[in-house]
Amino acid sequence: MLVCSTIAEMRDFVRDQKVGGRQVGFVPTMGYLHQGHMALVERARRECGAVVASIFVNPLQFGPSEDLAVYPRDFERDRALLERYGADALFYPAVEEMYPRGFCTQVEVGGPAGCLCGKSRPGHFRGVATVVAKLFNIVQPDRAYFGQKDAQQVLVIKRMVEDLNLPLEVVTVATVRESDGLAMSSRNVYLSREQRAMAPSLYRSLKAAARAASGGERDPRRLEGMVRENIAALPGAGIDYVEIRSLPDLGETDRLTAPSLLALAVRFGKTRLIDNIILGE
Amino acid sequence: MLVCSTIAEMRDFVRDQKVGGRQVGFVPTMGYLHQGHMALVERARRECGAVVASIFVNPLQFGPSEDLAVYPRDFERDRALLERYGADALFYPAVEEMYPRGFCTQVEVGGPAGCLCGKSRPGHFRGVATVVAKLFNIVQPDRAYFGQKDAQQVLVIKRMVEDLNLPLEVVTVATVRESDGLAMSSRNVYLSREQRAMAPSLYRSLKAAARAASGGERDPRRLEGMVRENIAALPGAGIDYVEIRSLPDLGETDRLTAPSLLALAVRFGKTRLIDNIILGE
Repeated sequence: MLVCSTIAEMRDFVRDQKVGGRQVGFVPTMGYLHQGHMALVERARRECGAVVASIFVNPLQFGPSEDLAVYPRDFERDRALLERYGADALFYPAVEEMYPRGFCTQVEVGGPAGCLCGKSRPGHFRGVATVVAKLFNIVQPDRAYFGQKDAQQVLVIKRMVEDLNLPLEVVTVATVRESDGLAMSSRNVYLSREQRAMAPSLYRSLKAAARAASGGERDPRRLEGMVRENIAALPGAGIDYVEIRSLPDLGETDRLTAPSLLALAVRFGKTRLIDNIILGE
Repeated sequence: MLVCSTIAEMRDFVRDQKVGGRQVGFVPTMGYLHQGHMALVERARRECGAVVASIFVNPLQFGPSEDLAVYPRDFERDRALLERYGADALFYPAVEEMYPRGFCTQVEVGGPAGCLCGKSRPGHFRGVATVVAKLFNIVQPDRAYFGQKDAQQVLVIKRMVEDLNLPLEVVTVATVRESDGLAMSSRNVYLSREQRAMAPSLYRSLKAAARAASGGERDPRRLEGMVRENIAALPGAGIDYVEIRSLPDLGETDRLTAPSLLALAVRFGKTRLIDNIILGE
């Protein structure tokens, strides 16, 4: 597997793939990889002649009080994992390579970026959209792969790709979970033993609400209430949001008439976990 | 010359060019073409295997009190001109094709977009950057051609291309002028006979300042003052700005030590004209 630390090296690799007629699949990550990331690589491997992954902890998408400085990193382990799962190239740029002096352009997606994590993390999706636009222009993939765990991120990126006419397809891959249901996340490593034991309750609450919706409950406020009640019972868990939103625009909804997103963000101490489920699918 | 009104048709044409190994040159315009535009097409024709022009009067870059509704249009004449100058394809989309329902993404360039026209036309360069990003992603040119008359626009687009890593080269082509020095512009058609007779004074004032700079005047404020004085003598001319700025970031400058941009915007009645010259080149 080729490791490229500069944009020029990455472009050279991609040019060779295009000349060779190989479609490029792209898995952008912030590293500290887990089985969720590997599911993206596997899917890209099946669908594309060349697979590029990237590892870049993007400062632009972290707020001033967020965990940029302590975001977990383990490059050697990540590299070995990507190689084992068959990635052909890894883009691993320094911050100065992506944001040199004078950098001043941002991509702002309205619509689906305004609520949920967009509300609790102001500027987060502007940072995500900007770095993903850059990565897409550098790697020029035919397909890019994202996990459903970050449901809002995928909707924001799809919106950006459509609005800016980026010539690629965004592929969403199902959330990979631990055996007890906890969604895989690089941030799970922050959890204390007690927090880790409580964390699977998030997905259990989502599934309970999905069962209630399947059973006929059409009132989003009551479904949200069920989830909130379950989480409120967890000692030390702080609810950031529990919301049902329409798809794909994440508009407000008063009654479940079409598949909708039930999403939550919950803090265990300093660790903020997100998860979601689609209702009425 | 192929005329494409949909993004899909345009993409098909571009794909064929890439498969055929032809480099694509792109000339984005708002139509009502003049010799300035034709200089861009001629340059693209010389440098690229395929030449694409676009005509799209972009609502996003007009302010609410600006001249969107009355912006001059003459599609049949434009088409004939482009054909005569050897364009291979013309992208001519409707507003709904470019901004369908739900569109909500904007590209915001800071830095060079904040002053001059960015100050007198708030949101203008956000509209320009957004539509140009879209056009670049649709046409995927190897080179895109812009006129030096819109000096700030070129600097904003170059900044965006660099910051978002768009895989193309931005080529600046010298301003084409009428025989009396007036910079060609689609908006010149709005000028009354009296205004048209005064308009060449703009460039004469710029040239006088450039001569003074060549002669040793290093104080930007005094050079700006010379231009302002000349324009103030024109009955009915209203100065929007006359400013000397550093290149390429358009920062403020207190002393001419490197090539700098002397730019102006002046209103004759409702018609706003811009022009510029580079000092110390």
